[in-house]
Amino acid sequence: MLKRNLISDGLRKQVYDTDDPDVVVIHFKDTVTAYNNIRKAVLEGKGVVNNAISSLLFSYLAGKGIRTHFLSTDGGREQMCRRTADIPIKMVVHNYVAGPLAQKLALQEGLKPPAVIYDLIYSTDGIDDLFINDSQALALGIAGAADLEVIYATARRINDILTPLFARAGLKLVDMQLSFRRDTRGEIILAGEISPDTCRIWDAETDEKLDRDRFRHDLGKIVASYEKVYQKLSGLMAAQEA
Amino acid sequence: MLKRNLISDGLRKQVYDTDDPDVVVIHFKDTVTAYNNIRKAVLEGKGVVNNAISSLLFSYLAGKGIRTHFLSTDGGREQMCRRTADIPIKMVVHNYVAGPLAQKLALQEGLKPPAVIYDLIYSTDGIDDLFINDSQALALGIAGAADLEVIYATARRINDILTPLFARAGLKLVDMQLSFRRDTRGEIILAGEISPDTCRIWDAETDEKLDRDRFRHDLGKIVASYEKVYQKLSGLMAAQEA
Repeated sequence: MLKRNLISDGLRKQVYDTDDPDVVVIHFKDTVTAYNNIRKAVLEGKGVVNNAISSLLFSYLAGKGIRTHFLSTDGGREQMCRRTADIPIKMVVHNYVAGPLAQKLALQEGLKPPAVIYDLIYSTDGIDDLFINDSQALALGIAGAADLEVIYATARRINDILTPLFARAGLKLVDMQLSFRRDTRGEIILAGEISPDTCRIWDAETDEKLDRDRFRHDLGKIVASYEKVYQKLSGLMAAQEA
Repeated sequence: MLKRNLISDGLRKQVYDTDDPDVVVIHFKDTVTAYNNIRKAVLEGKGVVNNAISSLLFSYLAGKGIRTHFLSTDGGREQMCRRTADIPIKMVVHNYVAGPLAQKLALQEGLKPPAVIYDLIYSTDGIDDLFINDSQALALGIAGAADLEVIYATARRINDILTPLFARAGLKLVDMQLSFRRDTRGEIILAGEISPDTCRIWDAETDEKLDRDRFRHDLGKIVASYEKVYQKLSGLMAAQEA
């Protein structure tokens, strides 16, 4: 398939169209951002390892029946994906309380709540991500009631699939931000990426942070930590296949 | 019943215990506040008219089967109420988008959303009111799943009762903040007040604001507007009884 024109050039990713109108190429940059893009850096190799982790997880989810935009990876920093249309909604799934949620609720980082927390986020260009609820989403006209049901149900299934996978790999999936988009048939499918850029991932033994918080909090060893996540997940999957 | 000791002295209300351990007296002050109590003023007669409106609405709701803390009014600025225990939760019901919600969602004030918006608020001394969702309430341990069901169902019933009542009185019930507390049997009941201090109420014909926004936005005629709300509601009820 032939990569053609750049159709979107984001801080962290580029999207190209191809000679197949239903397929795009997504290019993972090495740029890392934080605090609504106020802070930026280029970390050599980050795009490659994020693509590797996300490709692995999206393939795993597809094998469990989750519909995603992912088609294939070039093994470097590019993915073939289904062409999709934006929905200005993200879902953040919290298995443990950490980061801004811990600050907001004045709860200790690392606390495991009695039930998983699902936070609906209104996310669109030009505004900072906004925490909303279902009836606010309906008022904004950004999703219908049936769309929200699909988004919650899919987020729940993804979390139920990934949390035990991460646990078997010796990792805590503390929280993750899921992006949804609409495919050409109008159905809502998982898009974006699932990586240490979009999740909080801790070592299950030591609670060492292995995610973008290392950048936010100047903890160093950022790409090395992302690579540790990849090694643990890919090692587990290779062992399961063997 | 004998009023005895002051047990709580808030900016807007005082609570006294009585010789009946299950009954308290709530005294409505003339103080009006805004912006998390940063702005304050004393408006002569405000406590009396708020007590009149809230007593009338709580009696009406009780007649429709809603359990509340309200027992009786002295016709001035005091109510006899059931003794209750605090729950750090409020529910804000929005029939129209206005105020901070309009700003947050960048929607026009006065827009009627496709479905009523129910916003759960974590409200306790020492912190500013915090917009949360159900799973965050569970994480905070401030309510159980069954409690939340009662709060949502009761808020929905109250809104379904009051919205048409206000409409028949020539008023738009734009939004209202409902307080819930636990009675001595542990059941969640409606408490606080329903008044132009805790609701946005507009004239149905002119959209003139008849609520605390007149204080927030320096529109003047504050108590006179609250009295207009009382006249319209009490006039309607007198006509219905006749």
